Amino acid sequence: MSDVDGSGTRYVVGVDYGTLSGRALVVRVSDGAELGTAVHEYRHGVIESTLPRGGTPLPADWALQDPEDYREVLRHAVPAAVADAGVDPAQIVGIGVDFTACTVLPTLADGTPLCEVPELRNRPHSWVKLWKHHAAQPYADRINALAHERGEPWIGRYGGKISAEWQFAKGLQLLDEAPDLYRRAERFVEAADWIVWQLCGVETRNICTAGYKGIRQDGRYPSTDFLAALHPGFTDFVAKLDGPLRAMGERAGTLTAEAAAWTGLPAGIAVAVGNVDAHVTAAAAQALAPGRLVAIMGTSTCHVVNGSQLAEVPGMCGVVDGGISPDLWGYEAGQSGVGDIFGWYVKHAAPAGVDSHERLTELAAAQPVGAHGLIALDWWNGNRSLLVNHDLSGLIVGLTLATRPPDIYRALLESTAYGTRMIVEAFAEAGVPVTELIVAGGLTTNRLLMQIYADVTNRPLGIIGSAQGPALGSAIHAAVAAGEYSDIYQASEVMGRVDRDVYRPDPDRVRAYDALYAEYRTLHDHFGRGGDDVMSRLRTIRNNALADAAAQEPAALEVVG
Amino acid sequence: MSDVDGSGTRYVVGVDYGTLSGRALVVRVSDGAELGTAVHEYRHGVIESTLPRGGTPLPADWALQDPEDYREVLRHAVPAAVADAGVDPAQIVGIGVDFTACTVLPTLADGTPLCEVPELRNRPHSWVKLWKHHAAQPYADRINALAHERGEPWIGRYGGKISAEWQFAKGLQLLDEAPDLYRRAERFVEAADWIVWQLCGVETRNICTAGYKGIRQDGRYPSTDFLAALHPGFTDFVAKLDGPLRAMGERAGTLTAEAAAWTGLPAGIAVAVGNVDAHVTAAAAQALAPGRLVAIMGTSTCHVVNGSQLAEVPGMCGVVDGGISPDLWGYEAGQSGVGDIFGWYVKHAAPAGVDSHERLTELAAAQPVGAHGLIALDWWNGNRSLLVNHDLSGLIVGLTLATRPPDIYRALLESTAYGTRMIVEAFAEAGVPVTELIVAGGLTTNRLLMQIYADVTNRPLGIIGSAQGPALGSAIHAAVAAGEYSDIYQASEVMGRVDRDVYRPDPDRVRAYDALYAEYRTLHDHFGRGGDDVMSRLRTIRNNALADAAAQEPAALEVVG
Repeated sequence: MSDVDGSGTRYVVGVDYGTLSGRALVVRVSDGAELGTAVHEYRHGVIESTLPRGGTPLPADWALQDPEDYREVLRHAVPAAVADAGVDPAQIVGIGVDFTACTVLPTLADGTPLCEVPELRNRPHSWVKLWKHHAAQPYADRINALAHERGEPWIGRYGGKISAEWQFAKGLQLLDEAPDLYRRAERFVEAADWIVWQLCGVETRNICTAGYKGIRQDGRYPSTDFLAALHPGFTDFVAKLDGPLRAMGERAGTLTAEAAAWTGLPAGIAVAVGNVDAHVTAAAAQALAPGRLVAIMGTSTCHVVNGSQLAEVPGMCGVVDGGISPDLWGYEAGQSGVGDIFGWYVKHAAPAGVDSHERLTELAAAQPVGAHGLIALDWWNGNRSLLVNHDLSGLIVGLTLATRPPDIYRALLESTAYGTRMIVEAFAEAGVPVTELIVAGGLTTNRLLMQIYADVTNRPLGIIGSAQGPALGSAIHAAVAAGEYSDIYQASEVMGRVDRDVYRPDPDRVRAYDALYAEYRTLHDHFGRGGDDVMSRLRTIRNNALADAAAQEPAALEVVG
Repeated sequence: MSDVDGSGTRYVVGVDYGTLSGRALVVRVSDGAELGTAVHEYRHGVIESTLPRGGTPLPADWALQDPEDYREVLRHAVPAAVADAGVDPAQIVGIGVDFTACTVLPTLADGTPLCEVPELRNRPHSWVKLWKHHAAQPYADRINALAHERGEPWIGRYGGKISAEWQFAKGLQLLDEAPDLYRRAERFVEAADWIVWQLCGVETRNICTAGYKGIRQDGRYPSTDFLAALHPGFTDFVAKLDGPLRAMGERAGTLTAEAAAWTGLPAGIAVAVGNVDAHVTAAAAQALAPGRLVAIMGTSTCHVVNGSQLAEVPGMCGVVDGGISPDLWGYEAGQSGVGDIFGWYVKHAAPAGVDSHERLTELAAAQPVGAHGLIALDWWNGNRSLLVNHDLSGLIVGLTLATRPPDIYRALLESTAYGTRMIVEAFAEAGVPVTELIVAGGLTTNRLLMQIYADVTNRPLGIIGSAQGPALGSAIHAAVAAGEYSDIYQASEVMGRVDRDVYRPDPDRVRAYDALYAEYRTLHDHFGRGGDDVMSRLRTIRNNALADAAAQEPAALEVVG
């Protein structure tokens, strides 16, 4: 252990790479106190219409990023956070990072992104593909169909479906649409691992993204036979992915002189293995024990929970051995629209005078359970778990001339709670018990929403004690990588923060919600499991109508789209 | 024929009694020109919470009116309309009236309303029960159950269900809840017939309300056996209802000296038999020929159409021999929420900036059919035809984060058109062809809505040429009663006004709507015909939640109700 000034006070830095910006947080090792923070917004944000400078136009559903924006976070946010903390950089002993995922890029053997090779700069496929790049859907469809056809053992670990967002779908898209770039890409690497590589000069792969986003199960990636059946040129894909695999909390290497110059941190300090923003939050919320489900609730919700047994849970995102922390099975699920739906309502469906979350929540909170007579299906942005279907859409039933804005707003809050209960019950039915909820993210401030989740799920609900859960989690991993704690569990207990049982289920409301949840479940299965595929057909009708209109008058697409 | 000043110009007056006011219209007999009009608002409007003066409180779902308000229309609106027309009252040769229905009152043998008997004034059951008095539902339920149990032949004429709004349900409620008043009520009379009685001093009953609202079929009311089985004291109900029956367009009598003094019209002129506001509009819209369906579209829609054959159409309101005009079978259907739903949307679900019908219509009109990806079930106020179920409620499916206000607004317009198509198809399937639509009422000014109806139903759509369809229709009936025309058909051709084929179905849009209508129909049958009775259960849950809240804290009902 380092003790540079004799005070014994040591610090770590966590860096959280989000969709639009990166945040650095300086944390005291001894107790997890958050001493300073700073945010740096990506200059190019999400690249969706044209490439920077060259201006190459992008097709629909593309979402790219510029890796230089990630380095800029190290150059700006880290020193600013240290300055904000007012600590001596010499007392900082480690750095850890977490990232959105699956966010992935093709590089040369030395880690140089293809988009930084001058002659490849105007090629869309040379850039970072952000998690929400959804143009690889046909490739995911092909992978899923083939996996089921061949009975691949790993497909059950992903609830029966891998996502278009993940490494194999994006890699296959690269091969199919830009085979020359696929060949130039000596490495295909998660941004989480790439930024760690930039920090310590050593390529590593973390168990978390390798498992959840890279189809690594039981120590193996999909077989060469499978890859060949997908595409004859795809057999070397695993070779581009595979690298020195490191468990969560391990040290990837030490800070290089170059990275020390960027960050103002001491060269040689520990650099933790990369991580995913949702999964790293479990450590920050003291929620590594089996059964404590962490829901990171923002525009969407990601759920992570440890289990002591392996189970294949239909419709879940994935289960990975040690995916959240060593020696436990890490489970992930998600809801693709949560805060986004509430935001949509306030912006596009709430009349003047009640068009704020605060006012609507206040009015909705006064209602007894069931008094609005409504049920909604929370699929405004599709369904990630359990149905894994982005063509599903939202539904409201029970509307009358007496329905008022707080009624609908409350029904939308409740619908997302029902969606979470579906996930919790699917876990429980598959043998992964969920005993309590721990909520992190921006929605924790809505007390009505939190109480609804406790009542609907009939489980006590705790709130993470940090507003910067992912960055705190990364700092905890940094402390472990620096040898300050023996493992993540120990570090999490000391440095993590949670207020447990803040919301307790009320027996009367639990009973009332049981009846409403039964209605939700019936509607969920009818519209989500083949009873009536109207949502999918309406999507097709909509897309065809818009395409026809665009064909007739190109300019019209902007207006109606 | 009268020709008092030698000019040969003769006029008639039509009086339309609505829910909140009565309107008089002065019309030239020779061509139907509308020369003057005036409206008089009822002093007591709809009496829903407490009786006037005495203040006796009313239970939920009650809706009463004061018959004196009807006389006031004769005293104020008629002279004002004549003054507005600038015609010599001596040249007016007849008066006709139409009324909301079933609006019904108990009277003494001479027509004195029970509520005008001083000692009965504070008894709620002595007042006029307005059409939308819905507190007789349990009695309608009993009548329907018994009718099906006994296989009563007339029940099929009403689509299998009589309404809580009608005479027998309201009469049975009177007997059950106020037997002394039932006994005092020597007559039980439609307001349409009662006001005619006030005008000419002669009691008559019109074939229209006797059939649609009074269960008179094939020359008979329900049997004494049936009435006895309902309630031993109910066997004399038909005696209270039955009176000199008159066909539509007949003369009920001549204007009394007293009524002449009220109205300023000449004593002795013809008084036409009473009529219903919707049905009388068919004559005004030149839509008496079989197959021309008149849709009176306002907050709700009433459909009337003549057919040359008798058919029993499941879920329709009723079929009556000569119910609209002599020698044809008159069919009635309805949608209980139309303009009300659009109004609800603008007031309670449209954000600032687009919260007007004009703006939303303009934006919605720019969309190709199907581009919003939505389907709604138009049951915000229940379903009158085909399902006859007030516990049904509204539904929207297909909502996404990209859904915008004009999308939902257009989907709501379309949902009511799908509802009309369901009715049109039910008529056609039962052997009552509908060849064109003629629209009357306040919604005719929305050109987008009209075009959607033409496209969805694949039928040419005409618009009535009068803004006062019912009053014009009553004036036409007055002209026939005065002997100016040989029958309603002839009078309608000369005095009625319609612009036919104003909107023609577009083949491309018809095809596009066929696909969407198929989705509507599937949802309609799933939620309306037993696939999932979630709407009814949500209604029960809502009512119980509100009742529990009210029981715990009486004052809370006002807030959440």
